[in-house]
Amino acid sequence: MTRTAFFISDGTGITAETLGRSLLSQFENAEFNQITKPYIDTLDKARSLVGIIEATAERDGVQPIVIDTIVDQTIRAIVAEAPAFQIDIFSTFLAPLEVELGAHSTYTVGRTHAIGQDEVYMHRIEAVNFALDNDDGARTHQYEEADVILIGVSRCGKTPTSLYLALQFGIRAANYPLTEDDLDDNGILTLPASLARHRHKLFGLTIDARRLSAIRTERRPNSRYCSLDQCMQEVEQAQALYRRFNISYIDTTRFSIEEISTRMMNETGLQRRFSPR
Amino acid sequence: MTRTAFFISDGTGITAETLGRSLLSQFENAEFNQITKPYIDTLDKARSLVGIIEATAERDGVQPIVIDTIVDQTIRAIVAEAPAFQIDIFSTFLAPLEVELGAHSTYTVGRTHAIGQDEVYMHRIEAVNFALDNDDGARTHQYEEADVILIGVSRCGKTPTSLYLALQFGIRAANYPLTEDDLDDNGILTLPASLARHRHKLFGLTIDARRLSAIRTERRPNSRYCSLDQCMQEVEQAQALYRRFNISYIDTTRFSIEEISTRMMNETGLQRRFSPR
Repeated sequence: MTRTAFFISDGTGITAETLGRSLLSQFENAEFNQITKPYIDTLDKARSLVGIIEATAERDGVQPIVIDTIVDQTIRAIVAEAPAFQIDIFSTFLAPLEVELGAHSTYTVGRTHAIGQDEVYMHRIEAVNFALDNDDGARTHQYEEADVILIGVSRCGKTPTSLYLALQFGIRAANYPLTEDDLDDNGILTLPASLARHRHKLFGLTIDARRLSAIRTERRPNSRYCSLDQCMQEVEQAQALYRRFNISYIDTTRFSIEEISTRMMNETGLQRRFSPR
Repeated sequence: MTRTAFFISDGTGITAETLGRSLLSQFENAEFNQITKPYIDTLDKARSLVGIIEATAERDGVQPIVIDTIVDQTIRAIVAEAPAFQIDIFSTFLAPLEVELGAHSTYTVGRTHAIGQDEVYMHRIEAVNFALDNDDGARTHQYEEADVILIGVSRCGKTPTSLYLALQFGIRAANYPLTEDDLDDNGILTLPASLARHRHKLFGLTIDARRLSAIRTERRPNSRYCSLDQCMQEVEQAQALYRRFNISYIDTTRFSIEEISTRMMNETGLQRRFSPR
């Protein structure tokens, strides 16, 4: 039996969805059909949503789960009539917080992802531009301004990680691919001078060779580039380099981009460029 | 009086931080020093954190707020001893959910941002590559494969939005800058043929001319490009184009990248490429 779970908000729905996913992921053996409904910000939208929830309850033969962060009391009251098991995040926590803080909450919609836009935007856009300008070993002269330089073999996750770091934390992450170009005469991988100068900023990514081979196969099937032998050799060389130069590194194989980024921030002690709002 | 708020987790801390920010942002007149503590996953780390919270309580002269998603019961018990106003997200909601679902939660750490990595990663990396390959009007021949083509004047937010869409939803977003190159003989902005062919995929971004001028000034100070006159003219031309071709558009001026993206998804009915986990 698959239950339907609705994550409902009068804003983006990011908070309701994030918490909802977390809670439901704790029920390993249950299957959920997860639906996010953002911008339920009028009485009409709320009524129409109640209709959808009713139809879903009937179709599923069991009441859906509703996890909401609706701030507007009138809209929330309408959603509360839907035949569902309701987790109302703001009602649950705001009242005790009001007591603790000795203050009334202002109950405004979508503050988290709405305000402080100007400053945050500037940090983000600058960091995104930096990541793009310094992607894949390009323009190595900007390493002076980098917060971190991600290194690793081709396709181990450097580019998406550097973009996530830019968007989420305003971190300026350059990235540099470790390739055969940096093998010395004895076939040992070395650090190019441009990187060696910034050794304290280097952070390594590594990956399981089988997984790397699968990822590369998507990009360039039946190539030496994607062969398991080649991948194993490159990964070994990279890890040997990290150990030799005492560079912190993370195995990205079983981690999401969120995890890789958070772990890197945590291990390096880097501070985000904009405060959470 | 500034209160300190700790967002604590044995995983990435993303859920605790997201919910924590949302709750605290409802107290408009209060100031919070917000600190995220991810990967509190050993007894030692928990004990050391309790020490930090104790010191903070003493320094602030008021007990901190603790918002946590610690799954491990032993670790959680240690954090619970800290002198703080504690909001324990999992304890609060998992027990009632267990009753409703007639199932025990599996209580495993960091499931949200950890599992389903392979498939999600492939979608993300493909979408990020697509956004990069189709950024700023490059390689227009891939528009066939685009989920959406963001259009707008230079610096209105197209690139960060397309990257966010890729990372967050796996959406393949191309973007195309509206410039003087596309003015016709009468000085009217037109749609180039490569875009006109995909009119149903177009989504416009617009922005307040003053804000645009401020953003462009950061990039190229004292230029015609950043002058208010030039910005006003470009923005007017772009909006006239949207209306003429009946293209949906969003004013990005007061919205975060999260909001722009969520609103676009909502208005176009685009479906994310990977399911939330």
